[in-house]
Amino acid sequence: MRATTIHAPGDIRFEEVPDPTIEEPTDAIIKVVAGCICGSDLWPYRGENPIKAGSTIGHECIGVVEEVGSAVSRTKVGDFVIVPFCHCDNTCAHCAAGMQSACVNVGITQSGQGEYARVTQADGSLVATDGMPDEHHIPSLLALTDVMATGWHAAVAAGVKKGDTAVVVGDGAVGLSGVLAAAQLGAERVIAMSRHEPRQEIARAFGATDIVAERGEEGEARIKDLTDGVGADAVLECVGTDGAMKTAFAIARPGSTVGFVGVPHGVELPIRTMFSQNVGLAGGMAPVRRYLPDLLDRVLTGAIDPGKVFDLTLPMSESAEGYRAMDERRAIKVLLQP
Amino acid sequence: MRATTIHAPGDIRFEEVPDPTIEEPTDAIIKVVAGCICGSDLWPYRGENPIKAGSTIGHECIGVVEEVGSAVSRTKVGDFVIVPFCHCDNTCAHCAAGMQSACVNVGITQSGQGEYARVTQADGSLVATDGMPDEHHIPSLLALTDVMATGWHAAVAAGVKKGDTAVVVGDGAVGLSGVLAAAQLGAERVIAMSRHEPRQEIARAFGATDIVAERGEEGEARIKDLTDGVGADAVLECVGTDGAMKTAFAIARPGSTVGFVGVPHGVELPIRTMFSQNVGLAGGMAPVRRYLPDLLDRVLTGAIDPGKVFDLTLPMSESAEGYRAMDERRAIKVLLQP
Repeated sequence: MRATTIHAPGDIRFEEVPDPTIEEPTDAIIKVVAGCICGSDLWPYRGENPIKAGSTIGHECIGVVEEVGSAVSRTKVGDFVIVPFCHCDNTCAHCAAGMQSACVNVGITQSGQGEYARVTQADGSLVATDGMPDEHHIPSLLALTDVMATGWHAAVAAGVKKGDTAVVVGDGAVGLSGVLAAAQLGAERVIAMSRHEPRQEIARAFGATDIVAERGEEGEARIKDLTDGVGADAVLECVGTDGAMKTAFAIARPGSTVGFVGVPHGVELPIRTMFSQNVGLAGGMAPVRRYLPDLLDRVLTGAIDPGKVFDLTLPMSESAEGYRAMDERRAIKVLLQP
Repeated sequence: MRATTIHAPGDIRFEEVPDPTIEEPTDAIIKVVAGCICGSDLWPYRGENPIKAGSTIGHECIGVVEEVGSAVSRTKVGDFVIVPFCHCDNTCAHCAAGMQSACVNVGITQSGQGEYARVTQADGSLVATDGMPDEHHIPSLLALTDVMATGWHAAVAAGVKKGDTAVVVGDGAVGLSGVLAAAQLGAERVIAMSRHEPRQEIARAFGATDIVAERGEEGEARIKDLTDGVGADAVLECVGTDGAMKTAFAIARPGSTVGFVGVPHGVELPIRTMFSQNVGLAGGMAPVRRYLPDLLDRVLTGAIDPGKVFDLTLPMSESAEGYRAMDERRAIKVLLQP
């Protein structure tokens, strides 16, 4: 098959690689209908994460089940499925507790920007739609495989509840999804920290009531003003840098929780502030499978439209351009078609 | 008056100091009936915290109201009161949200190991008993001013709920209070990590179902065994050292929360583990005032007997010996009588 691969920082190719095959009886092979590029794919692209030259990249896709292993019973060939980026058996103690991203049989999609992808623990991981979805739902269904569920996890981890003032740090696709999640979970006021007009627009469409364009100390002061000096009831940290985390803790009110979902890079947690202000930290790699049934329902009933985060669609063969566009912030999130 | 003072690491004296006086109209002066030494007093005693030579030390006391400022109305001269170590107006936004330790008018008891103590924000801070308490309740009422409420906060922050397996790291007075709190909050299994026989005994009396005497990696392995490899549903970190925090995160199950109340000293949080395992951190300086009415009720009805943590009673004039006894772990917690 052909798939997107990474050879070195900035070196993305779309090329012939071996077809994925059933390796375990619990596996399934998916024919990809749509894949996409994740903000976290930019870490290796920018040389911040180690790279195994020539390996496939991309952990987000949806598609049709092509083949299943001998132990797969719930998933049928021909099913249209949402593939959570982290696979799980959905039966172990961690899955039963809603922490599927810590499943004892956890796996990650490896070629979501290719023509086919292998899913381990197919029965536990995959959620099928009722027949083939409408074309216009494709972007939103694709968003469920990671960013929407991850933004949702940030809001859940931050403990967003009805009437809250929630602040979202980060205006990438995850941050925007976090805005949508906070609004859905009942936040009365959702403050999006964003400097970019097109992203501000999506934030507003997703339910942001206020936009703060300032960053760092200036941004923190603005949030304090907007909350009468009290701070936010819930903060969603959707970046993963030390600066974003510092801002998150600076604007969280005493007793609140920073929900974090950005893969931490160089973050030093301000433990003494956490102690003196009783600001907690919760979150991590999103247990996507846990949220999928609910989120799928919200998409199909039209309650949410997370596919709005895709502002560029390219053929998979042009995935390299997709990476460039996201790296240069010309695109929020890129959808790739095989 | 005479009060305990600290002059240098290891140099504790009981000597004449100026009487505390009403400085603000919201103040009250308390005639101390009983005070005590806190584990956190050992930080300056051991030279780990800066010392202002000659300053009074001690933030835990109970007693009788001697004098009140002109703006104090709810608190009456002659009331027997529990003095939460951190004072609060109990009306600001943080207090209203149950975070009295972050009150905009927060204060700390300064001479709890002396004959008199000044309480700022008397009306917000003080909780009076109905008349003079029985002599046998004195230790338990004294424990409410800090350690019992702090252990309770650890359990609340860790999210202990009915049926949980909770682990308490630390067998000081706060850790033992954490055991009691976890049991009261419905934990089915409470595992106390303790190497010391007298402390193990109190832990058992407080509701510990299991004792793990091993520390470090060996202790972590034992907890994993006791929880079928899953980890604890809730972990109470009641020490404040890096080792204790490392253990806490190593034994917490994915999706759980480490409740921390030990003043952090040299702690580096394992953020990548927190992310990959979705283990959160919550807690900090306990909002004692929030828990006082409930805890007072539990003491007076006999539901809890947190005064058991006092295993040595000394006249205040011998406070230096009290510090030595706690520093050398000959005593768990020392009660001082004026």
